[in-house]
Amino acid sequence: MINLNNINNPDFLKKLNNDELSVLSNQIRNFIIDNVSKTGGHLSSNLGIVDLTIALLKVFDVNKDKIIFDVGHECYPYKILTGRASKFKTLRKLNGLNGFQKMSESKYDHYEAGHSSTSLSVGLGFALARDLDNKKHNVICVIGDGSISNGLCYEALNHIGSINTRLIIILNDNEMSISQNVGALHNFLDQIRGSKNYNNAKTNTKNLLNKTKIGNKIASFIDKTKNNIKMLYIRKGSFFTSLGLEYYGPINGHDYKEMLKYLEIVKNEDKPVILHVITKKGLGYKPSEEDTDGTFHGVEPFNISDGSPKNLYNLPTFSEVISSYVFNFAKKDKDIICITPAMSKGAKLEVIKEKLPKQFIDVGINEEHSLLLANGLAINNKKPIVFMYSTFLQRGYDEIVHDIARLNQHVIICVDRAGFVSGDGDTHQGLFDIPFLISVPNIVLSMPKDAKEANSLLYTALNEKLPFVIRYPKINIKYDFNKPEHLKIGSWEVVTSGEDGVIITYGDFVSRAQNIVNQLKENDNINLTIINARFIKPIDENMLIKLLKYYKKIFIYEESIINSSLGSIICEFKEEIQTNNEIYLYGVPDKYMFTATREELIKLNELDEDSIYKKILQAYKK
Amino acid sequence: MINLNNINNPDFLKKLNNDELSVLSNQIRNFIIDNVSKTGGHLSSNLGIVDLTIALLKVFDVNKDKIIFDVGHECYPYKILTGRASKFKTLRKLNGLNGFQKMSESKYDHYEAGHSSTSLSVGLGFALARDLDNKKHNVICVIGDGSISNGLCYEALNHIGSINTRLIIILNDNEMSISQNVGALHNFLDQIRGSKNYNNAKTNTKNLLNKTKIGNKIASFIDKTKNNIKMLYIRKGSFFTSLGLEYYGPINGHDYKEMLKYLEIVKNEDKPVILHVITKKGLGYKPSEEDTDGTFHGVEPFNISDGSPKNLYNLPTFSEVISSYVFNFAKKDKDIICITPAMSKGAKLEVIKEKLPKQFIDVGINEEHSLLLANGLAINNKKPIVFMYSTFLQRGYDEIVHDIARLNQHVIICVDRAGFVSGDGDTHQGLFDIPFLISVPNIVLSMPKDAKEANSLLYTALNEKLPFVIRYPKINIKYDFNKPEHLKIGSWEVVTSGEDGVIITYGDFVSRAQNIVNQLKENDNINLTIINARFIKPIDENMLIKLLKYYKKIFIYEESIINSSLGSIICEFKEEIQTNNEIYLYGVPDKYMFTATREELIKLNELDEDSIYKKILQAYKK
Repeated sequence: MINLNNINNPDFLKKLNNDELSVLSNQIRNFIIDNVSKTGGHLSSNLGIVDLTIALLKVFDVNKDKIIFDVGHECYPYKILTGRASKFKTLRKLNGLNGFQKMSESKYDHYEAGHSSTSLSVGLGFALARDLDNKKHNVICVIGDGSISNGLCYEALNHIGSINTRLIIILNDNEMSISQNVGALHNFLDQIRGSKNYNNAKTNTKNLLNKTKIGNKIASFIDKTKNNIKMLYIRKGSFFTSLGLEYYGPINGHDYKEMLKYLEIVKNEDKPVILHVITKKGLGYKPSEEDTDGTFHGVEPFNISDGSPKNLYNLPTFSEVISSYVFNFAKKDKDIICITPAMSKGAKLEVIKEKLPKQFIDVGINEEHSLLLANGLAINNKKPIVFMYSTFLQRGYDEIVHDIARLNQHVIICVDRAGFVSGDGDTHQGLFDIPFLISVPNIVLSMPKDAKEANSLLYTALNEKLPFVIRYPKINIKYDFNKPEHLKIGSWEVVTSGEDGVIITYGDFVSRAQNIVNQLKENDNINLTIINARFIKPIDENMLIKLLKYYKKIFIYEESIINSSLGSIICEFKEEIQTNNEIYLYGVPDKYMFTATREELIKLNELDEDSIYKKILQAYKK
Repeated sequence: MINLNNINNPDFLKKLNNDELSVLSNQIRNFIIDNVSKTGGHLSSNLGIVDLTIALLKVFDVNKDKIIFDVGHECYPYKILTGRASKFKTLRKLNGLNGFQKMSESKYDHYEAGHSSTSLSVGLGFALARDLDNKKHNVICVIGDGSISNGLCYEALNHIGSINTRLIIILNDNEMSISQNVGALHNFLDQIRGSKNYNNAKTNTKNLLNKTKIGNKIASFIDKTKNNIKMLYIRKGSFFTSLGLEYYGPINGHDYKEMLKYLEIVKNEDKPVILHVITKKGLGYKPSEEDTDGTFHGVEPFNISDGSPKNLYNLPTFSEVISSYVFNFAKKDKDIICITPAMSKGAKLEVIKEKLPKQFIDVGINEEHSLLLANGLAINNKKPIVFMYSTFLQRGYDEIVHDIARLNQHVIICVDRAGFVSGDGDTHQGLFDIPFLISVPNIVLSMPKDAKEANSLLYTALNEKLPFVIRYPKINIKYDFNKPEHLKIGSWEVVTSGEDGVIITYGDFVSRAQNIVNQLKENDNINLTIINARFIKPIDENMLIKLLKYYKKIFIYEESIINSSLGSIICEFKEEIQTNNEIYLYGVPDKYMFTATREELIKLNELDEDSIYKKILQAYKK
């Protein structure tokens, strides 16, 4: 047995035989299960890729070859084998081991990404640079079958397949993106997996092939008979060969003999090549192996015995609450169509998916398509609601500007994970959506302070024929099943009244503002008004005029980048009406964040109640 | 002969025989040549699609069927046949006929887009809405071979191919996007076109097949021998069939018999289907037929006799000037790699493409990929410069935020067509790039006031290892071959000094400001300072502090949306340092623009010299 903590680099793998590699595999899998059960993190994708990672590191030389993991969250085995096992106790924590590849963390991390499907374009850049420099090393992109279905990869394949550059693509095919995979490419891969060739290969994962396929529910898949006819036209890998790539596979990603053989073959190719490797997500941990809906994709700390979560929350998440409200509306209105690009689990849409399958579409990791599909539905009088994390909505910016908002269509976008995001680090913060949406004409941009207001915003969004964004953070909140109200577009709410100044804020920062205001009142006899700016765009101009005329001091308190968020609009508005206030902007500075919990990020950016209390007090002491 | 001006709708086509249709085709082609030679507009794509449009309108019923043209600039024949011929004199002019499909212009325009590759996603939305409503009409997406290579289309195809919804895709394949097409899908289509099947078909466009292929220059295409082996694996349409679509074709897009037959076939399909139609771009006008570099894609008014432009400019465009400077740098530095997503003609990169082919990559209409490819090159110490129009950079927002800027990589982005854009209307304005980039950490965002400064900004960008954006408008300017200077990042320049106030502006608005300031001095004895804020981000904080402390009145004058542009950053900064100025923001309002020339748009948004002069004067009269 190797002490994983003593591994400095993967050179030792060269000396191990296949049996020894298998022992190491199991050891690494157990290490990951043990650690992730304590820290939380990405589990099933990492368990599935252990053997493949070992095989890659045995065949290639990462001192010169470059391995790029697409969406670096499946890099735990890689981190262990490149000398970072001892840091796993700090995984995804402040100053700890990053949950993704991180160039600053190790010389072995050649790229880093949190968003999917970047590896092929970047890898081609690496390969072309190598060719220009007359170097000879290998560039290897490791990408999942979910990620490769994104349009960005197609653009890259379209380029890669047209030139002679040496580039090795390892398609890590586990039949799932985050939850069940969808789409035509998935069906195509399914057919390859089901082909005679693969069935005949020696494999310990034959059970893979008998899975029930649960696909896109809005329409059934092409039925079997037609599929059989189609099969006549489909050759192994034809999707890839038609794009000019050399295709090998599928091979068994848990069989060292097969993997080492084929990795040597592709290593010696003098052109772009794709090696199709079948792996089993979650391998080695039964609850994860049997997971079909992505429960063990990203997990919080859990009990190894049965996979149950260690932390039990009394309150539901904001996502769950939103999903319940949408479900209630959708039950009664068949025109409501819920769409998500592979975030049905994350955005807690299972209830809608299961109970209203005709009103639910998971398009896979295809953010841009999801928004335009919604736009097409909206033009035809449907009421599409797209669910997406703030950070992934960045991929859909043009579809919002050029299509949805320009045509002023009734598309509702539920932006989950808005604001600081725990654990995932700089790639996943929901800090840009306000800055990039606030300058888009026609858009309604809103954030509820609590569950009741979320329900009212949804109700309003469904009744107003406008492009309507509702954003909410990943927090736990109380349900509220009172009847939703129609909110006037752009209307703000006075939460508390005071004479000495005003805090303008929104979202769950309203409740933080209440604590700050209470403290200022009790300790310092400073009495502030709190305004809930539930509409970030359009703003409540009538109320803002009154506020600017009445109060000298205006405090704007937001969990968004200071540049181009609500504060910046208010500053501009003040110049327009030429009042003489002091405006204090409390927001996120103009830099990328780091890995920490949301509360740590709030505190380290001095946006916690105590910091803001002190800053406001300071403003009165001047 | 039909009087085209008398056409109200395409119903009359049902009665015409194929010979009569051919007569009509020629008439429409001549009408387009005649009109576009006077007004300017999109020529070659419209000439190529005349017959196909007639065939579509004969077979389908646009009173109930929905035809969506991807990138609506190839809709001139459609506009003529749906009752808009008489308006062609006003094409692309203020209050005139739009150059794209426009839902507000005609009930026959079922969608509208200026950016490519949106039609399949939107069309699927139309089709799903139809199915939900139990309606039976057809949804037809007409898309070019260039557009279908964009990732967005792949995402749509991936969805379309997995479900049973009736949707008809017409692939209008003319072997070109704007200029020569590139990429693996292009090669694949080429192989189909060259296949026995198509050669045997009766066709008057056989000459198409003998064209020399000029592809991506950075590496040669896979050589012929290997291609022949690969052909064994490639079946007709396998790319599409592997994605689950029914494929028909290729057919001749200028042969009515063939088209009408196949359109009837696909009309009766009960699943998604793609019909591959070969057309000849520019058909019917020799200079356009023979054009291989996109000269006749979008044209200014021209002389029909020889295709020469009617308007001759003494000065080069900003794009030409930038391209010359880049060429000069690239000649001496082999690490400079110029990349463009299909804008080599528009961004005037021909000289680089021809003379430095190893340093030039046209990736086709793949904006996202172009940026990540650049990022991969930059990480490996190359100096990529990506050329893209402002409006298309919107597609690459996430690649900038998540990849280039987050990793603080040395990628230079030359943003062409910044500011108002003539003729193309609401879909092509370059008004969003400042708002969406200004909140991105690490980005250097700059705009030169003239050619010399452009050269200096390029020189600086090449020497500073930072993500660096240089934006410039579509105007004609004087060359300046003085030696470029290194500009301190974030440094502003005092252009003129005065005592009474300051105008902060950038780009070619600096020269407008000079005229305004001269007028104010001469007529009104008001003396203003002009600051050239050539760096929009980061700002020159030291200078700004001095300005805010010294001057009461600050005028910010920009050709960008007021929300979230430079003015908004200055307003915030003023609150931070708590000075007591009056800031006047002159910029573009928060709404979508309309079709007009740049100068008209400047005037109608009251940003012309006269309007600003009056506004500033008003500020002093208060």
